[in-house]
Amino acid sequence: MKLRNLVGDRFKERPSDCVVDSHALTIRGGYAKNVANGIFSLYPPMKRITKKIEQIIRDEMDAIDGQEVMFPVVLPGSLWEESGRFESVGDELLRFKDRNNSQMVLGMTHEEAAVHLVREYAQTYTKYPFMIYQIQTKFRDEARPRAGLIRVREFTMKDAYSFHTSQEDLEQYYERCYRAYNRIFEKAGVPEVIAVKSDSGMMGGSISHEYMLLTDAGEDSIVICTDCGYSANMEAADNTVDNSGCKPAAELTKVYTPDCKTIEEVCTFLNSRVEESCKAVMYQKNMTDEYVIVFLRGDYEVNETKLTNYLGEKVHAAVVTEESGLVAGFCGPYNQNAKCQIIYDKSLEGIENLCAGANEENYHYTGLNIKRDIGEVEYVDVAKIQTGGICPCCGKKTITVQRGIEVGNIFQLGTKYSKSMNMTYTDADGEVKNPIMGCYGIGVGRLAASVCEAHHDNYGPIWPISIAPWQVHICCMRADQEECRNVADKLYNDLQNAGIEVIYDDRDVRAGAMFADADLLGVPVRVVIGPKNLKENKIELSTRDKRVSKLVDVDAAQDEVKALIAELFAEINAKVEPSL
Amino acid sequence: MKLRNLVGDRFKERPSDCVVDSHALTIRGGYAKNVANGIFSLYPPMKRITKKIEQIIRDEMDAIDGQEVMFPVVLPGSLWEESGRFESVGDELLRFKDRNNSQMVLGMTHEEAAVHLVREYAQTYTKYPFMIYQIQTKFRDEARPRAGLIRVREFTMKDAYSFHTSQEDLEQYYERCYRAYNRIFEKAGVPEVIAVKSDSGMMGGSISHEYMLLTDAGEDSIVICTDCGYSANMEAADNTVDNSGCKPAAELTKVYTPDCKTIEEVCTFLNSRVEESCKAVMYQKNMTDEYVIVFLRGDYEVNETKLTNYLGEKVHAAVVTEESGLVAGFCGPYNQNAKCQIIYDKSLEGIENLCAGANEENYHYTGLNIKRDIGEVEYVDVAKIQTGGICPCCGKKTITVQRGIEVGNIFQLGTKYSKSMNMTYTDADGEVKNPIMGCYGIGVGRLAASVCEAHHDNYGPIWPISIAPWQVHICCMRADQEECRNVADKLYNDLQNAGIEVIYDDRDVRAGAMFADADLLGVPVRVVIGPKNLKENKIELSTRDKRVSKLVDVDAAQDEVKALIAELFAEINAKVEPSL
Repeated sequence: MKLRNLVGDRFKERPSDCVVDSHALTIRGGYAKNVANGIFSLYPPMKRITKKIEQIIRDEMDAIDGQEVMFPVVLPGSLWEESGRFESVGDELLRFKDRNNSQMVLGMTHEEAAVHLVREYAQTYTKYPFMIYQIQTKFRDEARPRAGLIRVREFTMKDAYSFHTSQEDLEQYYERCYRAYNRIFEKAGVPEVIAVKSDSGMMGGSISHEYMLLTDAGEDSIVICTDCGYSANMEAADNTVDNSGCKPAAELTKVYTPDCKTIEEVCTFLNSRVEESCKAVMYQKNMTDEYVIVFLRGDYEVNETKLTNYLGEKVHAAVVTEESGLVAGFCGPYNQNAKCQIIYDKSLEGIENLCAGANEENYHYTGLNIKRDIGEVEYVDVAKIQTGGICPCCGKKTITVQRGIEVGNIFQLGTKYSKSMNMTYTDADGEVKNPIMGCYGIGVGRLAASVCEAHHDNYGPIWPISIAPWQVHICCMRADQEECRNVADKLYNDLQNAGIEVIYDDRDVRAGAMFADADLLGVPVRVVIGPKNLKENKIELSTRDKRVSKLVDVDAAQDEVKALIAELFAEINAKVEPSL
Repeated sequence: MKLRNLVGDRFKERPSDCVVDSHALTIRGGYAKNVANGIFSLYPPMKRITKKIEQIIRDEMDAIDGQEVMFPVVLPGSLWEESGRFESVGDELLRFKDRNNSQMVLGMTHEEAAVHLVREYAQTYTKYPFMIYQIQTKFRDEARPRAGLIRVREFTMKDAYSFHTSQEDLEQYYERCYRAYNRIFEKAGVPEVIAVKSDSGMMGGSISHEYMLLTDAGEDSIVICTDCGYSANMEAADNTVDNSGCKPAAELTKVYTPDCKTIEEVCTFLNSRVEESCKAVMYQKNMTDEYVIVFLRGDYEVNETKLTNYLGEKVHAAVVTEESGLVAGFCGPYNQNAKCQIIYDKSLEGIENLCAGANEENYHYTGLNIKRDIGEVEYVDVAKIQTGGICPCCGKKTITVQRGIEVGNIFQLGTKYSKSMNMTYTDADGEVKNPIMGCYGIGVGRLAASVCEAHHDNYGPIWPISIAPWQVHICCMRADQEECRNVADKLYNDLQNAGIEVIYDDRDVRAGAMFADADLLGVPVRVVIGPKNLKENKIELSTRDKRVSKLVDVDAAQDEVKALIAELFAEINAKVEPSL
């Protein structure tokens, strides 16, 4: 199509509310427009991108025997009551009444709807295994939408649900899906997406993976071993600490530490190592407001998901009242008389000479030896692993912690939904059982934004050819000059007739404006047709990422463009692993 | 794919709650499952059908320079307040609050969102005209969902919005869109869909059309002239009545008509013609409860949309109280003392000797002459035209009234939304103006169900090849016999490799069950492979509609199948008119 007709504005200024680059480019490039907090309309270029991503996903889902279905966006609350999630899910589940006063919800995920669709169908083992999926609008009433299309309230998601008669069968299928997901990201031009083992939370011991695109703009922390390749999200990574070489035991001594409220201040004041200090982090349980104090080595941080999983309930940062008996800034395990649950993190294990709060304003202890002074305690892993930490897999100190965006996830659900929703089948031996489920999600818009985040420069996105809104961008520098226009028009028509997707800029604008727009649209192959090169019967052919830039003969232009497109596709396909 | 793996049940019994055939087949054939009142999940065959319909629509929208975008399902109430529709639309607009107590609505149509998306972009006349469209989920909280996928609450719709700088330009584009719509229905295999002029209601004098599939299962009445081809929906068809030849004026006489409460009872009792009687239909205005009495010829019915348009407000059937002064069953224009608005329908014009209620229990008048006994009154057209009525176009008594399903509509909106939402552009002469809009809708699921309604037999749908879930259905009658299985497997693989969509039934079930399932899936081309014909080296090739049924050589099977598919497509394409 002609750029002059393309609906949407492109502009130079970075909007002030955009922290993340891809968010800024999404707005500046005319890809999306904010309609309400976390709710966007998509302009034609982004719709073209998401359609291509959807087709890549669809192809891979079909290749692993997925059957595309469609669930409703608006679901009856009664279905969510069956699974128990009507109660258990927080405000992110949007609940409302319809005109007949029936309780409805907006689907944020469709496990319930999936079970509802197939529970009459799949009553005998011969119907298994099977997988159904949809690509559909979801709504999740996020408290804090952010980063443009990366964390929104309304989004298009591919969600898939598989049903099995044994754990082995689920695992086999899970492995196929794992590979299919790799292929999806490879085909979408982001082979750098990695699968990390993820916390399966209160759902029990089942396995799940998150697919992470590593970028500083991400809000998730990913733990990677640079030696053995181990990867996990922060919640799932066991934190092992080496406390060998700490100083020997000493006498427990109360010392005056005026105004030293942070562990760093105390260690500086006492001239001791923070690695030999005991820090207190105070929480309260959401349900009862009971205090929970986590003691951990001064240089570590609590991972609240690990803590929640250990406690079996959610917590929030403590509000320390006078009645609590807690002394903020000077809280320690010795002489701790407040009514609270105390947790010792594993990072303290093996240290015989600690500095810790004395539970008295302006005083700390030195020489604290937990075993000697407090007794045998249980050490629990609730801290975040750190860069340089010990790999839980190979044992080397080769851990790095990186930021990432979660672009997909796969779960082994087990029988959570089939049991609660009473979905059963009769097995070969006549026994009635609950099927075992897996579920598999990819956020389409988030993937598009993530690709932009991973592949852009200061001037705009650099779209991989497989998902680019168009394959070729033609800039006609002087549409007012007959030869220039004729050559450009002819190439535009020839390429379109050859089935190539072309955006054609024949506007009467300055070269700078033309190139700025082309950069913002991020089309991988660019053709610039201008009077100077035409004198030599040449046009300029380049790629958005600047790896290719050359002059080609006018007559060869069509073939050269086609060859370049084929080359870009070949580069992507070379990185796509075979399916399982 | 193999039928044995297809998710969804097919069964023989017609569900008791299905009045309409397509609804029954939708359930019996495993196409959709009810999730809540008017809300369905789609099984794979229906998802395949709707995807094909969407692609047909997309192709035609792109061909008339449409640009695909995506609007949100969940919209801020503030946007609907801008247009005034937050107040003016009834309970079918689902309103709710999000977690931050912001007022939101579920999009039932997206005029507001369309204006929101482009009002910064299109501020100068050079950006016009343009059209944007989406294919997206809508929710309309219908009071009475019915007929399966035909009238639902949640549905997928293609909605398009065009923007123009002059009425002429809108009309030109409207004509292109009109043609594109014809092509869509022709390509979808229902060339019998007709465009009828529709009531544009309170929106003013602008033009709109509804696309109707004529079927007794429809809930709309369509007025068609069998002579000149005039067509309109009931609200838009002027009702002209020929009262020549009525009996001459006579004396006004009150007569005793005991227990004659309906006009038919009165006419029978008095042995007079119902065509010379005056019937009363009583309403109340929704806002004020003021009574409105419509007097019309005894054999006509009130069209409430015409009445609403005339009154400029909505009405409901009257609740007649004692205080009202109205005498139900004996209400007439003479001696009418109740406080109410009286409307005389045009069907009474020219009758000089009427029978009518006397506003007194058990009494009527005969010989009523409105002009003589009441005076000059205004006659208004608020009645439904009837079969045999006078064509508003050619004047002949050649009107037929048929039932139909509305599968699409196109509107000339004018500046209703651009004005209320303050969308402006600067014209070539520097003047600031509101753009003129058109909008264009098609319900995807409803179209699928309508095609089924128009093309089915007692055993199942007969899908046109262009939208069929698969193109070929292979029945292997004896998968347990090696030759039979080998021939069927080979044909299945060969056809799939040739890019043909095949559903393959290799189950060990009775022939009757196999054919019943094939009929319910309605795939246009069927191949039956059984031992008897294989002895002669033949297989059976037929079409679902039974027009073709022949034996072909095993070796020729693939070519014959391809030829038959091509033939079926050619039949459809022959009926597709050229685009404008």
